[in-house]
Amino acid sequence: MSKSVEFYFDFGSPATYLAWTQLPKICAAAGAELVYKPMLLGGVFQATGNASPISIPSKGRFMLQDLQRFARRYQVPMQFSPYFPINTLTLMRGAVAVQLHLPERFDAYLTTIFQAMWVDALNLGDLAVLGKVLSEAGFDAQQLLALTSEQEVKDRLKATTEEAVQRGVFGAPSMFVGNELFFGQDRLDFVREALQG
Amino acid sequence: MSKSVEFYFDFGSPATYLAWTQLPKICAAAGAELVYKPMLLGGVFQATGNASPISIPSKGRFMLQDLQRFARRYQVPMQFSPYFPINTLTLMRGAVAVQLHLPERFDAYLTTIFQAMWVDALNLGDLAVLGKVLSEAGFDAQQLLALTSEQEVKDRLKATTEEAVQRGVFGAPSMFVGNELFFGQDRLDFVREALQG
Repeated sequence: MSKSVEFYFDFGSPATYLAWTQLPKICAAAGAELVYKPMLLGGVFQATGNASPISIPSKGRFMLQDLQRFARRYQVPMQFSPYFPINTLTLMRGAVAVQLHLPERFDAYLTTIFQAMWVDALNLGDLAVLGKVLSEAGFDAQQLLALTSEQEVKDRLKATTEEAVQRGVFGAPSMFVGNELFFGQDRLDFVREALQG
Repeated sequence: MSKSVEFYFDFGSPATYLAWTQLPKICAAAGAELVYKPMLLGGVFQATGNASPISIPSKGRFMLQDLQRFARRYQVPMQFSPYFPINTLTLMRGAVAVQLHLPERFDAYLTTIFQAMWVDALNLGDLAVLGKVLSEAGFDAQQLLALTSEQEVKDRLKATTEEAVQRGVFGAPSMFVGNELFFGQDRLDFVREALQG
């Protein structure tokens, strides 16, 4: 068996946080590999003409309720960030940098950033806050932030974002099982079914 | 018990068709009343600044697949209309007219229009096609189309559309259980839970 779920994600998306709380166990139960694909959601929006639901005020209000409903269903903590939307360029380059240079700490990086953003509701757009969060999680913040300026890291984030758009991604989270696209944390049951099929 | 689901709908929305195939049994199982609220989705979009998902090409392509996945899950027939999007003003005024003047035929009207639109994929924006569909379903098409010009009918559709926007509706289908809004045919399980609560 070589089943996998390719998970195109951006830390800035609250629905992506919810998907991340569920996907590892869904993949484990199906014996599937979870392949993390850091992308820049802002770049996806720019390329596709899509926008955050929050750009329509009543849709944004519904979304806040809706996310809380799913957080209760999943029994996971969630706090909507008062700093939303945050520019996630450094965070996503950080994800790529950790994948490339500190792969054994990638899961720790995901946990650290998702929790700081969507449980502790910190302003990760502020480099001082981000540095503190990383240090407290045992990362060498200065070294990691320096790695986000590497050309290879920048290029890889850009390439994955372009690849996502090429494959039909227009938002986050987006999951692929084979070539089948599933958009949204509210489609995880279809991901589960696709892994069984 | 006086539980109810208020269902703000427009025939032009494929997700609304899917919701309509499920809601009567969900309400019956919960002993809840299903209150039909015909609204004009175009008016809702105009008032809120929202737009059809189809306005973003890759989102539209995903939506087509996603609707088929849900149709399979619900085991209901569905064919995406090649005439989409259809101007539904006459169809929605027709729904109001039937509610006001032929209430005993309201369920038949819903079935006729939803099936012609989303199962038979007919061009109901064409009055000749609509007239034929209505006649075949046993309606006096000429009389019904005349009723769609009544001031009371026009005013009521407009009022319900404005009421929907006031309550936070930004798309279709939108369901209320009490004052809780549930948007989308993919939120029917939350509607079911709210009826139990």
